[in-house]
Amino acid sequence: IASRLQGIPPTIFTTMSALAVRTGAVNLGQGFPDVDGPPDVVAQAVAALEGGANQYAPGPGVPSLRQAVAEHQRRHYGLDWDPDGEVVVTTGATEAIAGATLGLVEPGDEVVVLEPYYDSYVAMLQMAGAVRRPVTLHAPDFRLDADALRAAVTPRTRFVLLNSPHNPTGTVLSRAELSAVAELAVEHDLTVITDEVYEHLTFDVEHVPIATLPGMATRTLTISSIGKSYSFTGWKIGWATGPAHLVGALLAAKQWLTFTSGAPLQPAAAYALTSAADFPKQLAASLHERRDLLLTGLAEAGLPTPTPDGTYFAVSDITHLGWADATEFCLALPERAGVVGIPVQAFYTDHPDAGRQLVRWTFCKRPEVLAEAVGRLTAAD
Amino acid sequence: IASRLQGIPPTIFTTMSALAVRTGAVNLGQGFPDVDGPPDVVAQAVAALEGGANQYAPGPGVPSLRQAVAEHQRRHYGLDWDPDGEVVVTTGATEAIAGATLGLVEPGDEVVVLEPYYDSYVAMLQMAGAVRRPVTLHAPDFRLDADALRAAVTPRTRFVLLNSPHNPTGTVLSRAELSAVAELAVEHDLTVITDEVYEHLTFDVEHVPIATLPGMATRTLTISSIGKSYSFTGWKIGWATGPAHLVGALLAAKQWLTFTSGAPLQPAAAYALTSAADFPKQLAASLHERRDLLLTGLAEAGLPTPTPDGTYFAVSDITHLGWADATEFCLALPERAGVVGIPVQAFYTDHPDAGRQLVRWTFCKRPEVLAEAVGRLTAAD
Ligand SMILES: CSCCC(=O)C(=O)O
Ligand SMILES: CSCCC(=O)C(=O)O
Repeated sequence: IASRLQGIPPTIFTTMSALAVRTGAVNLGQGFPDVDGPPDVVAQAVAALEGGANQYAPGPGVPSLRQAVAEHQRRHYGLDWDPDGEVVVTTGATEAIAGATLGLVEPGDEVVVLEPYYDSYVAMLQMAGAVRRPVTLHAPDFRLDADALRAAVTPRTRFVLLNSPHNPTGTVLSRAELSAVAELAVEHDLTVITDEVYEHLTFDVEHVPIATLPGMATRTLTISSIGKSYSFTGWKIGWATGPAHLVGALLAAKQWLTFTSGAPLQPAAAYALTSAADFPKQLAASLHERRDLLLTGLAEAGLPTPTPDGTYFAVSDITHLGWADATEFCLALPERAGVVGIPVQAFYTDHPDAGRQLVRWTFCKRPEVLAEAVGRLTAAD
Repeated sequence: IASRLQGIPPTIFTTMSALAVRTGAVNLGQGFPDVDGPPDVVAQAVAALEGGANQYAPGPGVPSLRQAVAEHQRRHYGLDWDPDGEVVVTTGATEAIAGATLGLVEPGDEVVVLEPYYDSYVAMLQMAGAVRRPVTLHAPDFRLDADALRAAVTPRTRFVLLNSPHNPTGTVLSRAELSAVAELAVEHDLTVITDEVYEHLTFDVEHVPIATLPGMATRTLTISSIGKSYSFTGWKIGWATGPAHLVGALLAAKQWLTFTSGAPLQPAAAYALTSAADFPKQLAASLHERRDLLLTGLAEAGLPTPTPDGTYFAVSDITHLGWADATEFCLALPERAGVVGIPVQAFYTDHPDAGRQLVRWTFCKRPEVLAEAVGRLTAAD
């Protein structure tokens, strides 16, 4: 294995989902819903398959999807991107992260990143030869510390890799927190790469795309996808928007990673964004209820858990249950209780102690599945 | 744009297909068929979409597809791979190339590659920091020169990146040519990465997977896909097979590039390999006829063209038409004649003179489209 990958473990999601399959446990680990998105969107994919959309899509994405993404950014956020050159379709947000890092980041560039890190950020930054500059979010509230943020920037800092709503903590950065990032970016001439795949999954708080803040549209590459907003995580249709020099750099790398993908799924994604535009809001309302169901159940199981404002994840401190190490806890849990959660330590790469006692649960499952999981947790105590 | 991508132009396929769309020319450039693969395979994709295969596929691929790939390798070639660890599903062969280079190749490693290069090889080798050691195939016969091959290997050579049937030349390496590669690989302890996406598209010659030659199974990573064999280039479902240390290194990189893709398309690809196993042979027979149709037409248009033994490409020497530079010719041709071809010079990165006069045409289009194209070429003279 090449040295650019050395020391990087397999993604925790593959490990824990394989464990769930092997043990028959209820999987509150990897974040994928157990109910698919809108049937009329599926019907569009069927029509595309049967209608002959089975050969290469254009490298930057099918025009209808690039237009739909541009229109989505305009309608929701007032951002104005040219579908031709300022929008690129990717194989999920993961490929957008990979393309952005390989396309933009030079070896030795310092990149400010929120810790806990979604695991692909760590891997791709290492593959690009970047130096991570962590800004650590601490339990139980996981807010952004403006002083820590400022202290992370040095003369060699070139990028901020942002993620809000934030996985795994569920933090939705406030306008004030994002303004602190934006001011720093302008002051130090930083490029911001922001992963906003949970943009529509917030609960009574507003999602602010950092690209909308003063001075940011020209320096921000924004990433999102159909997966989380429309409950089609397996389609792996994502995109990035931003000024042509940033989108172009991503595309310059991405064309060699996959060239293109999902030709029959791209028109359906375009349909979703335009003709099923209300779905994400309904999904968020439903997730709001399921979040509360999970949190109530966890509290009853002896595991009081802070309330996340966004994403479909909640993070518990297992010292409440008398455990000290979340990795041990999560590896034992499938056998002990028939439930899978994700040890958040896997994402605190630079400060493992800050995540040692933390477990992430997803609430993107049906209410009866959540009830079953908390029932099992309660019974196992 | 990051320096790892500097000097690499956008893929010629995007450029030329965009030109075809813009001018309404007959597109004999990018290699994608204008008739989709078997309807029953499409029906399986529809069933998967409607049956709920819409969330993340496992990172290494859905088990049924990994099994079908292993079974395909056993049935056709007597190669025996464990679906668990020795087979990985990728977003087309392109992602397999990207994952293999990023997962295996160290900066400074020398890689022996057949020139003309499929363009993603050049880009990915540069991104991995590899040093290209070309073995150049020359018009008009494009055979492998055993002396040139031997001369390309140095003490720093670690890999051979092979491609047979070879794009763009249509050369199918013979058993003797492949044995020369294999002997060199064994002698110098090289790993072979071999792109065999046209494995089923040969005409009266045998395709020999290099992994079947003595001493090769343990040192070869073989790449293929559903795209070319089943006429679903837009699905971007590919795979790699080989010993676990090679497949594992590819997966170690690939999990961060896309994680996974095409969840509803993977089961249909599994079905294709098992239940539509005769399709590739029928496709090859049909392509054989279309190859002859194109070559006859080109000869009549004043462009006698050597006969390729495989792929769906033929390469003409345009000096027959009084032109010297294929890039100029191909950029002028859409306006002049309403036809798009690919200047092969784009693939002779290290010896541009060797490809200056060469144009690649695909014959994977319907007979009437091929006839229209040669009619236009004839009329334009
Ligand atoms: C790409 S697999 C992980 C899915 C996900 O976003 C999560 O569970 O955090
Ligand atoms: C990935 S686009 C190019 C398709 C192809 O294989 C070719 O035309 O050579």
